[in-house]
Amino acid sequence: MSDFNGLPPHVWPRNATRQEDGVVTLAGVPLPDIAEEYGTPVFIVDEDDFRTRCRDMAAAFGGPANVHYASKAFLTRTIARWVDEEELNLDVASENELSVALRAGFPAERITAHGNNKTPSFLRACVREGVGHVVLDNHGELELLDLIARGAGKAQPVLIRVTPGVEAHTNEMIATAHEDQKFGLSLADGAAWAAAEAAVRAENLELIGLHCHIGSQVFDAVGFSLAAERVLGLYKRIHDELGVRLPKLDLGGGYGIAYTADQRPLDVLSVAGELLSAVSRTAEEMGIEAPTVLVEPGRAIVGPSTVTVYEVGFTKTISVSDDAFRRYVAVDGGMSDNIRPALYQAEYDGRVVNRFVDGVETATRIVGSHCESGDILINDELYPDDITTGDLFATANTGAYGYAMASNYNLFSRPAVVSVRAGEVTPMLRRETVEDLLHLEA
Amino acid sequence: MSDFNGLPPHVWPRNATRQEDGVVTLAGVPLPDIAEEYGTPVFIVDEDDFRTRCRDMAAAFGGPANVHYASKAFLTRTIARWVDEEELNLDVASENELSVALRAGFPAERITAHGNNKTPSFLRACVREGVGHVVLDNHGELELLDLIARGAGKAQPVLIRVTPGVEAHTNEMIATAHEDQKFGLSLADGAAWAAAEAAVRAENLELIGLHCHIGSQVFDAVGFSLAAERVLGLYKRIHDELGVRLPKLDLGGGYGIAYTADQRPLDVLSVAGELLSAVSRTAEEMGIEAPTVLVEPGRAIVGPSTVTVYEVGFTKTISVSDDAFRRYVAVDGGMSDNIRPALYQAEYDGRVVNRFVDGVETATRIVGSHCESGDILINDELYPDDITTGDLFATANTGAYGYAMASNYNLFSRPAVVSVRAGEVTPMLRRETVEDLLHLEA
Repeated sequence: MSDFNGLPPHVWPRNATRQEDGVVTLAGVPLPDIAEEYGTPVFIVDEDDFRTRCRDMAAAFGGPANVHYASKAFLTRTIARWVDEEELNLDVASENELSVALRAGFPAERITAHGNNKTPSFLRACVREGVGHVVLDNHGELELLDLIARGAGKAQPVLIRVTPGVEAHTNEMIATAHEDQKFGLSLADGAAWAAAEAAVRAENLELIGLHCHIGSQVFDAVGFSLAAERVLGLYKRIHDELGVRLPKLDLGGGYGIAYTADQRPLDVLSVAGELLSAVSRTAEEMGIEAPTVLVEPGRAIVGPSTVTVYEVGFTKTISVSDDAFRRYVAVDGGMSDNIRPALYQAEYDGRVVNRFVDGVETATRIVGSHCESGDILINDELYPDDITTGDLFATANTGAYGYAMASNYNLFSRPAVVSVRAGEVTPMLRRETVEDLLHLEA
Repeated sequence: MSDFNGLPPHVWPRNATRQEDGVVTLAGVPLPDIAEEYGTPVFIVDEDDFRTRCRDMAAAFGGPANVHYASKAFLTRTIARWVDEEELNLDVASENELSVALRAGFPAERITAHGNNKTPSFLRACVREGVGHVVLDNHGELELLDLIARGAGKAQPVLIRVTPGVEAHTNEMIATAHEDQKFGLSLADGAAWAAAEAAVRAENLELIGLHCHIGSQVFDAVGFSLAAERVLGLYKRIHDELGVRLPKLDLGGGYGIAYTADQRPLDVLSVAGELLSAVSRTAEEMGIEAPTVLVEPGRAIVGPSTVTVYEVGFTKTISVSDDAFRRYVAVDGGMSDNIRPALYQAEYDGRVVNRFVDGVETATRIVGSHCESGDILINDELYPDDITTGDLFATANTGAYGYAMASNYNLFSRPAVVSVRAGEVTPMLRRETVEDLLHLEA
């Protein structure tokens, strides 16, 4: 890794800076001060980074209402309020996500409900609260929602999730007719058409569009455009055979971010431009009115806003072959606060944030404190060999699927989460105590 | 899968039975009754299964004090009390695990403290509370613990974790000189010897043995015996050069269980016999007194005791190629209550527990309800095609690393945990509410 003391701006939060004394600040707040006050590990969210990414998405996709923040990436009441203030819409994927959003005062009509297996209770809550869109995943759900809406005397706006046979996967795009996955109804085998027909005929459902999602960490417009073109074929058929114009097209999430310095984040503005052009062009060719495109970024908004600061504990150098060594640097968190390296072999950019380091570059592995050998945060990097006990080591891009997937493995307390803005620190979630760990016990 | 209505006794809890009406009971309690009262998903622990496995381990390894239950697999105060009542010792791997054990009244002197990166606070607590053994992982920790013990005017009994170059991995045993992992000090490169020498010389540490752990899901004695033989070489050298006899040898955990019907669990009694013989024989050949062997089963005690009962939600049949279909059966939990399939590609045995099923065997995938396509519980099995909405579907062997690694992903509530014994149900952990999910918010 060249220049370990740098903070690559495409990887670190927008308001991260390294001061002349080597200390890294976020929105003007020195990270060591936060570690001192809130302990480590600690998640630190750059609020303006979050908000400006909301605005960038809104600008790229024709307005904030076309952008749905995907709660699954990270949701607290504070996050829901930020999304509301930025006038984005909100995706939820469980009844609890819906409850938390509503308790934050998020307007139900700007919420979209997702999930391959929504419970009857979740569907009833959607209808009762007046959720804007329900994205239907399967026939059973379609029938049940129609029944619930009938009981409530309402017409529930719905989209249908379709699988277009386009999948973005490990930086490659796979295009097939078939998709062997739990979500959605297939374009290829006629299931999507059958559902659309049923939804149009259902008395208490109002079909307003189709939804598809091609995957995660997508870096260009090709896959989105191809999926859109395929899905628009069904808009055409619905228009021609059922006489219904669907006003919305939800193309899901998957907007890629740069976890490491050698990656480039997806260029939102240019990808949005290409994608919207492809939709307009295809609709025009088909002789139908182009639907409004909706997108559902989660990671691309909250991921880069957040860093996790750990304290370095013990280090050791291990002989890994007759002529090679590896330095192990242990930090005071691990797979309980970030399961992604173990779960997805995810990579992170890590830096010492309390000072400059200038040791000899050495093969290094950053490991957590869990009682499991797979508890590795950064598997193999060349780091200066003077990273040592007491240093603060931070990983960038931990805002999405970090705290959201956190566990109490080894009964570790889940860390505190704070936000920073204009030199001020605001607590968002406090660190768990042993009492918290016991409070569910009978 | 042949006989889907069976309950393979080497996979299911010892007190699981299917009644003549098709309903499965655990310790005499019908699982549908528990699902009705506590909701789904729900973890159900067969207390006598847990206790009899404690006793089997104790019998195999020469008494309960030689068996340390590994808390990381699953720890609540109830579990700690059961372990105490069965007179086993207890392993902890974090300060919070230690706190919970002590709050359950578990005697500190029967606790062993583990971890590659114990915090200073954890080490101070170990000394202050009088923890029986601290397993030292590295030189820095050795020095710090000596200092802390000096401050407290105590001599802290310690073991040193060594890496013997024997690793059990995906059913194969790997034997090398080097181990590229975060735990322990190497036999091969002299680090283990240096630490042993330092520990013997440290004024406030009492070296009582060495520790090694060869991996997880081991099914025979070969790897344990080979590791023991290698580690005993260091006992010999410590005896000869330092004049110290180490009374204990801790061979860690890794005792394999059968997650699926085609696996065979490790035969504890025969493996223990082989292992203890190998240790005696090797010690005798070396002319040293054989140390007492300690073992640290976690999964092998709590894993098979527990089942998770889910309710089936929506199902769908998807065309996965031009001439093949797959049935998707969604349940109301998933990777939040069991991350192991996604994290380790772990397999589970699943059964319908509310009735007999007798449909046509069909390629089936059991999926969870999370907003993630990788949220799969059982990837590919031939199941009867009449498993349907409202059925109760249970996975066996979820006691270890199930609840212990549970998250609130998608803000799912963590399930209730109950134990059953002799027809009685006892709540252990209540299901989380939305209020619980919000209680850390600032």
